[in-house]
Order: sequence, then structure tokens, then C-alpha cells
Amino acid sequence: MTWLELADDAPFGLSTLPYGVFSDVGTPPRVGVRVGDRVLDLAGVARALSHERADVFSQPSLNAFMQLGPQQCQEVRAWIGQLLEDPAHRDLVERHLVDVDSVVLHLPVEVADYVDFYASESHASNVGKIFRPESPDLPPNWRHLPIGYHGRAGTVVVSGTDVVRPAGQRRPGSDGVPPFGPSASLDVECEVGFVIRGPTELGASVPVSEAREHLFGVVLLNDWSARDIQAWEYVPLGPFLGKSFATSISAWVVPFEALAESQVPLPGQDPPVLPYLRGETDSDLFGMDLHLEVRVNGSLVSSPQFRDMYWSPAQMLAHLTVNGASLRTGDLFASGTVSGTDPATYGSLLERTWNGTDPIVLEDGTTRGFLEDGDQVTLSGWAPGPAGTRVTLGEVTGTITPQGHPRRGHSLG
Amino acid sequence: MTWLELADDAPFGLSTLPYGVFSDVGTPPRVGVRVGDRVLDLAGVARALSHERADVFSQPSLNAFMQLGPQQCQEVRAWIGQLLEDPAHRDLVERHLVDVDSVVLHLPVEVADYVDFYASESHASNVGKIFRPESPDLPPNWRHLPIGYHGRAGTVVVSGTDVVRPAGQRRPGSDGVPPFGPSASLDVECEVGFVIRGPTELGASVPVSEAREHLFGVVLLNDWSARDIQAWEYVPLGPFLGKSFATSISAWVVPFEALAESQVPLPGQDPPVLPYLRGETDSDLFGMDLHLEVRVNGSLVSSPQFRDMYWSPAQMLAHLTVNGASLRTGDLFASGTVSGTDPATYGSLLERTWNGTDPIVLEDGTTRGFLEDGDQVTLSGWAPGPAGTRVTLGEVTGTITPQGHPRRGHSLG
Repeated sequence: MTWLELADDAPFGLSTLPYGVFSDVGTPPRVGVRVGDRVLDLAGVARALSHERADVFSQPSLNAFMQLGPQQCQEVRAWIGQLLEDPAHRDLVERHLVDVDSVVLHLPVEVADYVDFYASESHASNVGKIFRPESPDLPPNWRHLPIGYHGRAGTVVVSGTDVVRPAGQRRPGSDGVPPFGPSASLDVECEVGFVIRGPTELGASVPVSEAREHLFGVVLLNDWSARDIQAWEYVPLGPFLGKSFATSISAWVVPFEALAESQVPLPGQDPPVLPYLRGETDSDLFGMDLHLEVRVNGSLVSSPQFRDMYWSPAQMLAHLTVNGASLRTGDLFASGTVSGTDPATYGSLLERTWNGTDPIVLEDGTTRGFLEDGDQVTLSGWAPGPAGTRVTLGEVTGTITPQGHPRRGHSLG
Repeated sequence: MTWLELADDAPFGLSTLPYGVFSDVGTPPRVGVRVGDRVLDLAGVARALSHERADVFSQPSLNAFMQLGPQQCQEVRAWIGQLLEDPAHRDLVERHLVDVDSVVLHLPVEVADYVDFYASESHASNVGKIFRPESPDLPPNWRHLPIGYHGRAGTVVVSGTDVVRPAGQRRPGSDGVPPFGPSASLDVECEVGFVIRGPTELGASVPVSEAREHLFGVVLLNDWSARDIQAWEYVPLGPFLGKSFATSISAWVVPFEALAESQVPLPGQDPPVLPYLRGETDSDLFGMDLHLEVRVNGSLVSSPQFRDMYWSPAQMLAHLTVNGASLRTGDLFASGTVSGTDPATYGSLLERTWNGTDPIVLEDGTTRGFLEDGDQVTLSGWAPGPAGTRVTLGEVTGTITPQGHPRRGHSLG
């Protein structure tokens, strides 16, 4: 408890303190910190206190702040904690706290490169069964390396942005002509995104043991997927238009400092991985105990558990760079769909409805194989924090609009 | 001929006038135009003449200039032509011409998203034969859509940047353990890159008939490829580390205005493509008569002809956006390896040496299956210009360095 009168178990309590970019009427986008139902204007309070890094908080993305490096970012987090707990700062801080419902939230990160992994064994296995029934569930490389591919950075959008149903080609029927039109199997993928701090030099690699220095924070990420477009296009060079129309991330980036208590051992890797994926100490490889929920129009349809993931975020980053690929601040990589072995934890409708053959029933009695126009999908989550508190992972939401319909670029809140 | 005493058939003559970004000792990177063996300091001359757009030429990339739009870019090209041809400007222009050997050339474009296509039928067919001998040469989707995938924008580098041989996993032998180490089959891919002008709105598409408005210019592009890494990783989500370590582009971007004479009919598409890939008039779909050459350590190893490509650049752009994916200024898409049916026109060593089984002999008598450390690869090219002149496509070059070796970030010239 502080003078804020924010309960220890309130959403976005003091154990979370995520960063975002916001604006209110007539003001430019700048960096803020979410505190309960309010946003602390970090740019404003830093300027008022002549903080030596006030300039980085006045930027329209978190990139300049992230690039300060791990130690300075930790110092800023400690400073924010002091601001919020020390009554001496109360008047100043209160002048720079704004109601989150009164501001516009912007894409928090200027995304450099976006990579999507495929790190859930259940998800990869389910997709294999559905898309490649004639082959083994997992491809032969799957347990040897965290499979990944590049996605479209320019269509990463902030939570609340409407998603236009994409058009595209589908697999031909007996006439050999690919049908063309709006996707008939539009899907959600419940993922966790990792926001990266760089830069690294071209030709250098980031070992598993140094991954934490580059892991700035976590977002929830919906890797919207048009399954019919994807199924027709993806051989041999991978997903393209089935994914590139939109990828939504939450507006609040939860820094890794807030997630110390959520780090847990991996479920186990067999066969043993190559040395570059091992790390130096047991703690170098970590899973994360992130509890996720997928809702369609408010109905809970799945509860994926990130601790089920086969590959560690640190391994994904080490693999991404083992060929000498450099990192930039603002790089974003996602885990791939989070699915466990229990169907109630499958993170996509493809798996949850088994390619539409076993529809789910929503609270209003309607059924879904895939998403319909007007459907609102919301991913939310939390992680264990210190002393029994919860770290809030926030939410990422988006509504499907038909082709040619007016869209909102941003939502309030 | 102008007062420049530049022969009509000189490289980088007045029918080319490509844009780049350069700096010389103690000056910041800024926009220049290549004229013969010299660089016209566009930032300097525009400032001296109080040109209304002088600010965009003082930027360290072409992005702000490109974003002015097609009409303003045409006006700038006409203005540059006047500067170089009108004796009244001679003194001013001469003060702003610097020898290209005395400057550093920088990456000309701040690359937003990088997409690589696969638009040569011969290349796709050859790769199919080599990588998937048990399947038909072309995948079933190949003639219906220009297959593409996203690459790593952050590792696009300017010509002259050394390329560190990437390390990675390879397909396991009988022991089931993937070997790990420097790639043993490092390859070149001779491609043409298209630099894009945006932005477009998320949810909107660019029809074939409007593609020219977004095609700013052309670069030569070497999509370095580690075939052993690629072959093991690419199923099911496509190439990743086998490509992401480096992609080299030429320092000079040849604007589309210079390439009017190079536009030729496509070789022909059968079966007919879907309406969104057709365009409205015959001229909407165009091939390009670009003559390319691949040299290893100075020895000519291939002469790919871009007019052999199956898909039009306009179709690639229309396909890329048909799902509503938005464009940003600085997006870059590449054609995929340019290969004809004649082995002397194959644009990769994979094809030229048939996966190393039929090595080529260089002028020094040594042979190559794939690239060795120290090898220098240079792609160069030209296109027909007005009145029998040649438009110079310049060159993109890079030298392979072993792991852990010092590298040069930029070369002079």
C-alpha cells in the first residue's frame, strides 16, 4: 500500500508497472507507466524533476528508453517505485496521473524485425495432424531447434485496432482454379511476444547466458491467421499472406524485472539440445509461468499456460542470432501459439475446434468454427509476482471487420 | 553530351542518375546522385539554390525523398537533368561534385519490411529438383501466385560490407545428431530488389494497375544463402537462419523513371492468373529487360536475364497487399533468384553447380561448388536506355570472411 490507495491485488499494481505510449487531447504521444486505472505521465514527471533521461520519455515509442540498457532501465524502475511510494512526491505525481480511459494508447514499440517461433510441442503437433496428416506430427527438426520465421513488422498493431478480414487465394477444388475471396477460416493465435533491446553487431551471436540482457519485456500477442490462405500458400517458403495482414500486441509492455517470480524450469527437452542452446547454468534456461486466457465476445474459450512451452525464450533468442544475425532495439519475437495437451488450453481455434469440425459454443449459444465478422477476441494474462501478488499482463483485443468497412485505427483505453 | 564531358555510353551516364547516400570526411550522410565517376551532392546544391525540398536531401536515407510521391520525384529528376545540362549551373554544380572514390557509400534506404519472392520458373524448378526430388519440380501453387516470404530487414547491408560465414545446424546423419558449424554450402542469389514508396492504409490493397506509383526504384540484391542450414530448417515455416545473416544491396537506387525503355512483355502465364493479378491494360503487367552478371573473384560465372522472370514486379506488389497488408516507404521486395533455362543464366551456385556436384572453374583454375572464405562475389547489370544508351544498374559486392574474423563495416567507393 502507498498513498495511492491501490490494493496489493489490484490489476496493474506496484509489482507490474508496465510501460506504454499514450497521448491525450492536444498532446503528443509519450511514455507512460500504468498504475491501477491510471497512467503516470513519465515524460511530464521526469521533466518536472529534471531527470537526466527525461528526453527518452518524450519519444513516441519505448525504443530510446529501452536502448539505455538493462542497468539504466532497472534504475528507472526503482525511481518510479520511489515516486509512487514516497509521500514527498505525492503532489507532483498526482498532477501527472491521468485516467487510462481518457487517453489514447499507441503502439508502444517501433517494431524493427518481427519473428514468430513455433515453440509449443502440442501446437506444432496439432497443426501437423491437421495440415499434414500423411506425415509424422512433428517435423524431424522440431526437437533440435526452435523453428521460426520472419513476419511483417509493418502490420504489428496495438490492441484495440480493428482487423479487416483478409482476402486471398485458397486451395483449388476439382476445377483446378483457386477460389478467391475473404478468408473463411480466420483464426486467433494466443502468443507471448518478447520485446528486444539491441543493438548487436552483424556477425556476432547472443549466447543463451546473455539473453536476459536483451529481453526488455513481454507483451500479449495475437498472431491473427487466415488458415485457408495459409494452407494453400505456405509450401515451400512458409506463411506469408495468411499472417501478414495484422498482428496485435498489448499496449503495455511488462518489463522483465517484473517477471522474476514467474521464471520456472522448462518441462524438459529430449533429445538433449546442441551446446549453443544449453546455457551455462540451470537458470539460463527458463520457462515462464504465465497464465493466459482467450475470450471470444467475452466467452472464455481457452486457458493456455505458457509454462507448457518446450523452448525457452532465451533459446529462441540464441537460435535467432547463432548465424550472426544482428539485433536492433525494437525487434520483437513471439513464442508461437501457446497450447498444452489439454484441449481447454489450446491457443487457436484451429486446434480448439479441430479445423472447424468440432465447433465451440459461446455464452450466447452461438457456435464458432472460426471467427465471424464482428467477433471481438481478447487475450489476457497474469503471472505470479512477489509476496503472492499478481503481475498483470494486460490484454490484447481486436474486432473482425468485413472487407471495405470503416475501421477505427485506435481504440480508447 | 553536356559540359560534363560525359560520353553518352559512359557508365552512370545521364540516362541513369541513380540516388544514393554518401558522406565524406567530417560530413554527415546525405543524398547524392551518381554521375559518371562522381557524386553530385544533392543536399549541398539544393541548399545553395534554396530548393524547396532541400531538407529531404539532407537525410541519411532516401526515405523522406521517396515519400514525396511520384510526381515530385519526377520533378526532382528533371531538375537534376537541368542542373547537369545547363551551362548556367556549371560553377555551382562543379563545386558539389565529388569523386566517388573519395566518399563512403551508406545503405541508401532505411529498410522497413523486406520480402523475398520466388518468381523465376527455372529457379523454382531447379530448387525443387535438388531439394525435393521425390515431388513435382514446381509446387501446385507456383503458377497461381507469386510465392514470397518475409526476410530480415535489419541485416540488409550496403554493397561492400563483408559477409561473415554463418554457423548453424545441418541435417543429421545416421547418429541423429545435427552437426553444427560454419555453413559448408554458402551461396549467392542474384536478384533484383524493388524499393517501395508508401504509405498505404492497413486493410487496403494496391491493384496491379497502381503498382507503378509505389515502385520507386531498383537495386541489385544478393540474397546470400546457406544451403545446408536452409535445407534442415525450412520445413514447415520456410527459410530463416539460412538467409537472415545478410542480404546485400547496391549502393545506388536506379529510379523507375530511368527504366521506361527496359519494360517488356512477360514471357507468358499459363494457366491464366486470377483477376487481381491481371491489371487493366497490357502495359500494367511488364517484365524488365535487365541484363545481369554474377562474378566470383572476377570470373564471370553466370549471366541471368531478368526478362525470363515469370511474374511481373507489379503482380508481386499486388499479391503482397491483396490481404490488406499495408506498405511503408522503405519496404523492399526482391524478385527471387533470376535464372533462365540455360545453365549459363542460373543465378545461384546451387543451380550452377547442381548442389556442388558439378563445380565451376574460375579463371585462376580453382573450382567452386559453393563459396570459400575470401571469395568476392559481385553482381552487376545494365538495362537499355533511351536512344541506344545503357542504364547502369551498378553493382553489389561482398567478400566472405570466416567466423571470428575482423570485418569492414563499409567499403570505400
